[in-house]
Amino acid sequence: MRNGPETRRMIVEKSAAVFNRKGYAGSSMSDIMAATGLEKGGLYRHFQSKDELALEAFEFSIGVMTRKYREAAFRHKKASEKLLSVLSLYRHLTTEPPFEGGCPLLNTSVEADDTHPLLRQKAREAMESWLSFLEALLRKGIESGEFRPDLDLRETAVFLSSGFEGSIMAGKLFSDESYVELFLRQLRRYVERCLKA
Amino acid sequence: MRNGPETRRMIVEKSAAVFNRKGYAGSSMSDIMAATGLEKGGLYRHFQSKDELALEAFEFSIGVMTRKYREAAFRHKKASEKLLSVLSLYRHLTTEPPFEGGCPLLNTSVEADDTHPLLRQKAREAMESWLSFLEALLRKGIESGEFRPDLDLRETAVFLSSGFEGSIMAGKLFSDESYVELFLRQLRRYVERCLKA
Repeated sequence: MRNGPETRRMIVEKSAAVFNRKGYAGSSMSDIMAATGLEKGGLYRHFQSKDELALEAFEFSIGVMTRKYREAAFRHKKASEKLLSVLSLYRHLTTEPPFEGGCPLLNTSVEADDTHPLLRQKAREAMESWLSFLEALLRKGIESGEFRPDLDLRETAVFLSSGFEGSIMAGKLFSDESYVELFLRQLRRYVERCLKA
Repeated sequence: MRNGPETRRMIVEKSAAVFNRKGYAGSSMSDIMAATGLEKGGLYRHFQSKDELALEAFEFSIGVMTRKYREAAFRHKKASEKLLSVLSLYRHLTTEPPFEGGCPLLNTSVEADDTHPLLRQKAREAMESWLSFLEALLRKGIESGEFRPDLDLRETAVFLSSGFEGSIMAGKLFSDESYVELFLRQLRRYVERCLKA
């Protein structure tokens, strides 16, 4: 028998995948019960409501993705390589997705923007961290002389992030990771012609 | 008293906005009743199920957006101007959105990809038309000598569409259209440096 914190963590992990695939509104407590193997009573011993669980599951998902994008950057030396490595995280969207159900930031943002203020707030914070991370990579590239000194950091980060999220959307829609690959090919041109000094 | 087809059209229009804001799973028949002013019996006289209504509402939404992006292209002569005009459709996302609740293709794709095969199929068809439309604009630009002759049409269309959808996602998340404006500013650089001959 697992202890309390372990069970709680298992619930969060399993339901993060359910929410990411089916959405918050589209996931029922029965879906969570099926994924965790727990009865309703067992779930409610740990979480008062689907909302409480949804918020914690989203935080967990973002934690996983944050570690992955930091690791992807860490593996390379040059700023352009770090950037391309991070933006390639969903290259194997269908065969080896970094997170089941696609990008949790994309899924949660699109669902929560008009409907769920608490989740929307968490998604805003996650997006803000992600954009700041991209800006930091760009800044590093400017400092090392690799990128143009007149780059607008925020503008470029928003452009990069938008393409990244939009290509995941298309790849997921068609269950075809070649959409992500097409995006990445053109992204390499963009990095060469628009970012490099 | 409105006649049948008129009422049916009114139901489709009103529920398209509800679905686009709240999602399909997140919209209840009560939401549709509230938006249309009809009782459940009145709704079911026209639509057998929420699904039937959802599919027709999505087709309606895509019809509206298709007209808007064709008009946006038609207003200009040069291919680059057509392209920028089309990709600026959500520039006034918060103050004057072309469609209430944001981009129906983005919202429906993200929700339906893992959950709703019929809607996903419709979203795939809509995405395919949208990408073909962008490709046609690019082809026109190549033929007129404005764009580089070696552009990969599909790759460039996917890149443009991805940034477009991702910037709407960010703008909606923050209820702040400056994210779309930042995307568009960098897009203009991209068009100059990567697309133009």
